[in-house]
Amino acid sequence: MKNRAAYMTGLRKMEIRDIEMPKLKEKDVLVKLEYVGICGSDVHYLEHGKIGDFVVDGDFILGHECAGTIVELGSGVKSLKVGDKVALEPGITCGQCEFCKSGRYNLCPHVEFLATPPYHGSMMKYIAFPENMCFKLPDNITTKEGALVEPLSVGMHAAMQGGVKLGDSVVILGAGTIGLVTLLACKAFGATDITVVDVIPKRLEYARKLGATTVINAAEADVFAEVEKLTNKTGVDIVIETAGTARTISQTPYLIKNGGTIVLVGMAPQDIIEFNFAKIMAKEAQIKSVFRYRNIYPIAIKALAQGIIDIKGIVTHEFDFEESAKAFDFVINNKQDVVKAVIKID
Amino acid sequence: MKNRAAYMTGLRKMEIRDIEMPKLKEKDVLVKLEYVGICGSDVHYLEHGKIGDFVVDGDFILGHECAGTIVELGSGVKSLKVGDKVALEPGITCGQCEFCKSGRYNLCPHVEFLATPPYHGSMMKYIAFPENMCFKLPDNITTKEGALVEPLSVGMHAAMQGGVKLGDSVVILGAGTIGLVTLLACKAFGATDITVVDVIPKRLEYARKLGATTVINAAEADVFAEVEKLTNKTGVDIVIETAGTARTISQTPYLIKNGGTIVLVGMAPQDIIEFNFAKIMAKEAQIKSVFRYRNIYPIAIKALAQGIIDIKGIVTHEFDFEESAKAFDFVINNKQDVVKAVIKID
Amino acid sequence: MKNRAAYMTGLRKMEIRDIEMPKLKEKDVLVKLEYVGICGSDVHYLEHGKIGDFVVDGDFILGHECAGTIVELGSGVKSLKVGDKVALEPGITCGQCEFCKSGRYNLCPHVEFLATPPYHGSMMKYIAFPENMCFKLPDNITTKEGALVEPLSVGMHAAMQGGVKLGDSVVILGAGTIGLVTLLACKAFGATDITVVDVIPKRLEYARKLGATTVINAAEADVFAEVEKLTNKTGVDIVIETAGTARTISQTPYLIKNGGTIVLVGMAPQDIIEFNFAKIMAKEAQIKSVFRYRNIYPIAIKALAQGIIDIKGIVTHEFDFEESAKAFDFVINNKQDVVKAVIKID
Amino acid sequence: MKNRAAYMTGLRKMEIRDIEMPKLKEKDVLVKLEYVGICGSDVHYLEHGKIGDFVVDGDFILGHECAGTIVELGSGVKSLKVGDKVALEPGITCGQCEFCKSGRYNLCPHVEFLATPPYHGSMMKYIAFPENMCFKLPDNITTKEGALVEPLSVGMHAAMQGGVKLGDSVVILGAGTIGLVTLLACKAFGATDITVVDVIPKRLEYARKLGATTVINAAEADVFAEVEKLTNKTGVDIVIETAGTARTISQTPYLIKNGGTIVLVGMAPQDIIEFNFAKIMAKEAQIKSVFRYRNIYPIAIKALAQGIIDIKGIVTHEFDFEESAKAFDFVINNKQDVVKAVIKID
Repeated sequence: MKNRAAYMTGLRKMEIRDIEMPKLKEKDVLVKLEYVGICGSDVHYLEHGKIGDFVVDGDFILGHECAGTIVELGSGVKSLKVGDKVALEPGITCGQCEFCKSGRYNLCPHVEFLATPPYHGSMMKYIAFPENMCFKLPDNITTKEGALVEPLSVGMHAAMQGGVKLGDSVVILGAGTIGLVTLLACKAFGATDITVVDVIPKRLEYARKLGATTVINAAEADVFAEVEKLTNKTGVDIVIETAGTARTISQTPYLIKNGGTIVLVGMAPQDIIEFNFAKIMAKEAQIKSVFRYRNIYPIAIKALAQGIIDIKGIVTHEFDFEESAKAFDFVINNKQDVVKAVIKID
Repeated sequence: MKNRAAYMTGLRKMEIRDIEMPKLKEKDVLVKLEYVGICGSDVHYLEHGKIGDFVVDGDFILGHECAGTIVELGSGVKSLKVGDKVALEPGITCGQCEFCKSGRYNLCPHVEFLATPPYHGSMMKYIAFPENMCFKLPDNITTKEGALVEPLSVGMHAAMQGGVKLGDSVVILGAGTIGLVTLLACKAFGATDITVVDVIPKRLEYARKLGATTVINAAEADVFAEVEKLTNKTGVDIVIETAGTARTISQTPYLIKNGGTIVLVGMAPQDIIEFNFAKIMAKEAQIKSVFRYRNIYPIAIKALAQGIIDIKGIVTHEFDFEESAKAFDFVINNKQDVVKAVIKID
Repeated sequence: MKNRAAYMTGLRKMEIRDIEMPKLKEKDVLVKLEYVGICGSDVHYLEHGKIGDFVVDGDFILGHECAGTIVELGSGVKSLKVGDKVALEPGITCGQCEFCKSGRYNLCPHVEFLATPPYHGSMMKYIAFPENMCFKLPDNITTKEGALVEPLSVGMHAAMQGGVKLGDSVVILGAGTIGLVTLLACKAFGATDITVVDVIPKRLEYARKLGATTVINAAEADVFAEVEKLTNKTGVDIVIETAGTARTISQTPYLIKNGGTIVLVGMAPQDIIEFNFAKIMAKEAQIKSVFRYRNIYPIAIKALAQGIIDIKGIVTHEFDFEESAKAFDFVINNKQDVVKAVIKID
Repeated sequence: MKNRAAYMTGLRKMEIRDIEMPKLKEKDVLVKLEYVGICGSDVHYLEHGKIGDFVVDGDFILGHECAGTIVELGSGVKSLKVGDKVALEPGITCGQCEFCKSGRYNLCPHVEFLATPPYHGSMMKYIAFPENMCFKLPDNITTKEGALVEPLSVGMHAAMQGGVKLGDSVVILGAGTIGLVTLLACKAFGATDITVVDVIPKRLEYARKLGATTVINAAEADVFAEVEKLTNKTGVDIVIETAGTARTISQTPYLIKNGGTIVLVGMAPQDIIEFNFAKIMAKEAQIKSVFRYRNIYPIAIKALAQGIIDIKGIVTHEFDFEESAKAFDFVINNKQDVVKAVIKID
């Protein structure tokens, strides 16, 4: 066993190097990684060197959507065994702060999250990871699907924050990766009317294929008028914003039903957005937001295993590990075409 | 028994006229009104002739914060009797739409709300009102307090929307009537740290007297710095915005704790507000809003009866019914001094 | 148009008579009924003349699972039109009591529920019914399915009381009609492991066909041992008791997981049941119960329209209206074979 | 610093011995204990050697209600300092299982709970304890009150499981220590009508003093009739059973309101109880249970600091550490008189 990792060595620079095999702590397992997905945040770090307050300092390993096979167990590991396929939930939390103790561990201020500076990511061959953050994949789930549990979990957390349930109507703004996994999640949680809005026809095609009941091309149609027509002027139960633009965020009060829930998933621009709160108040709507996810991996894996969610359809591109630099270049240069690119480690 | 009502006959014009005694429907009671409070919305209609889409058309009776004594029963009334003191919940809802059926009757699109055009208010001597919207006051509650159950209910609904509970920390922006009843409500729901922010020293004095643990004069101190100090930089569990200004609404993301809840109560300006949603998302905070209230009157009356809430302290001015025009003039000209003015009908 | 109804005229006696056409109130519609299902409670009234405190007094019309087509509108009806197919939610509530106002209208003490003495049922050709209790069926749903929305709603309310959600494991005790509709509901709400227990092989076959992941014949296998095996000794997230026997109720504490939810649906015997509460407490489990349902019809109809639930499979027998007496006889004499019998009115 | 502990050395045998000073782990603090309360479970172990499946094996240290002053810090401790007074939450949980991750850490199967075999308790002079389970007491709270946070937390968890909130009516069955702390908790959560039932007049006196609005001596009065009178036949919103007898558990369905919540706190007899589930179902009531508590200490301490709860009144007896054996003897022989006995360590 020889370990190698793909390092970001500067803006849009990447190289693969030999590294040490990791040492296992008592409750760690050693995972031979098989797939790592390329996330928008990975691309953003590579292009800009930072996201908000998180700044890359020195050579840095990207990647946090990953799965592989266990090849060694720490001395205290009980629930997993060598040969198990596992998906890795990338945030290691303290388990002791008020957020962890109350079940909202995604808000743990002490979290060590893969590929979020100063913590390296998982674009490597072997990683040591805590047993309780490795989730066993059943036989009918591949590690390629396993790597996709991470972005799927964001969509599922969005649907859960929105309280999406059987019979609900939903508008999803944005049909990028997060918009599409949110669509899959809303379907799985029982939404019966799901309208997806974007301006790129190819993405709307994907949305249609993945189960949207209506798609709207906002470059051509009047979104408000279309949603009014669909809902007999009441608006929808839940609006989920995944595009992360000032424009789409500001549309949400006009689409939501009285008493409905808006969920913000797409990272809002850091600067300040114009918003019609008077309309929110007249409708007594609420606005929820999404920061990563919590307690979702086991549910996501069950939904995949039962065929309730089919995640395979979102992978549009696959690259070899040794071509990681090329893979990132491609993704950067083809943002509209790539829904999800994954790197096959081995 | 002779009925009279105070009519708004134009902008800032008001006169009192004899009117017919109301006819009782089967499940109505006839209430001899004793107190009617003057709400900011009454004043707004009198000054501007409209609030949002609700436009006064012709002579109009204001007033919706009211209580009195039952003097006659409709033929089908069972739960109340002549002589009972009652507070009137001013919104008569349909009981049949999806919002009513799911317990969110404040969102009923068919509601007939006192003093909201086209429905007249209760600034009159006798009113017919449905039995199920008249809430009996126990012996130790006066009808003056009964009239105040209405604004108190807004504060209580705000606290409930915020999920205020034992041990919580709260910032209340604005110490007008709604800010102060929200303060009383938060205390009653168990908040242990309540900071009230305003720019008018007299109002902050009231807040202090009514139980705020901290008051901040935003004209003199840096609100963010003060709240950081108070909370050891974590922010507070709940921020309740009652001032209804663009500035205070835009402050809320900076004051709230990770995972916390912002509640919007003060009517946001109809125009568009600048807001830092990125901060909301980084904290996974949520924003709730308040449209009137629901299922609060019985709780409010119990809290008053047990002395858990003492509402009497918010009345600063009292006028006779025949002086209604003068009363409104006074309130319009002394907005900073008046917390709550009431009109004694009889 | 000529109206006729099937009257229960004594224990196990039934006859069909001409009756008056009903008069429409302002917000009523006139429904030409097409299907009425035979419920266990109908059979029980016919055999025993009472259920608990509800005693049949004089000739009595049974039936409350029904759907048909609107043939006339009251003067105030706005949301429906002649020709609409509708399912009737059989409980007319007051809309004004504390239970109605808080969204729990199934607990309304003033409810008038079809075929619950002293209120007649719907085993007739034409019925006048309030607009807001008639739910429009989309084109792809037949009135036969519409009549089945009623029992389905019980199963859906059970699943909702249990909080069944994506990924949950469920044990359903009893595979009669209610057990089977509960199974359909649990699947629709996302349960991924559903074990159905009964002692009648035919019913277990139905359960298997309708989507149970496991079935256990309690006459042959050890239920506790089987569930332990399936859950790696943890027990299941939710146990739903639909058999209504002392034995199955007393099994629930042994099947439930720590922190799990038991739901009681099958009417418990009026006498007193032995139960191991110590086990419940050691697991901090909770026990919820089901009394009819609330706010379910719109969701159920959407789930049927989208194909998320296929209810047709539960109808095992169909009879003509004029043979109602024969139909009831058959059901009484073939309780193990009949899952759901329906009467075609026209 | 010299350490000593009170050992249970057999049934009703206890002796005090010198022991080693504990070693601190990185995130431990060393606490000089000042007060330890005597809990019913301590007494039960001393008399019977076991509770359910938990069997005392060899010499055993009792005690888990405790508070003291920090005298030394582990190398990684950041949030506490030497001299801080702290209350110890006695259950150390794993932080990694599904129960911990979802905020229900009281159900953690790996918990190490003080004085629950095989884990020793805290009846000793010095204890090493994890920083995150030590809760700082503000200046106006003594360590004697700090030791009482533990039983108070059981009462508060009971009230929270019952959803007790402003305006609720509650019946508490049993006025022992847990009944009385539950009473204090219900008041703090806003219950406005609290009826306490017991058969020992002295305990009912305590209940009256601590804020019960009604007390019923079940040896003299008909509990059902009294509660019917108090509630106008509706029953109460929440019934909390703290006596742990078959009789009182079986009374709960008759006292609860439609849609209400029963909470089981008093440990039910291990054998099987007769219970009228039909009544529960007709009311669609729910039954919740209490296993220890979670996330309560910070709230309890704030409530004490603000004077919302005054816990001092429940201490009826105080003993010196060196007299521990005598203290236990006294408690065993005077069960009806002792509400709460505490041992002053130093």
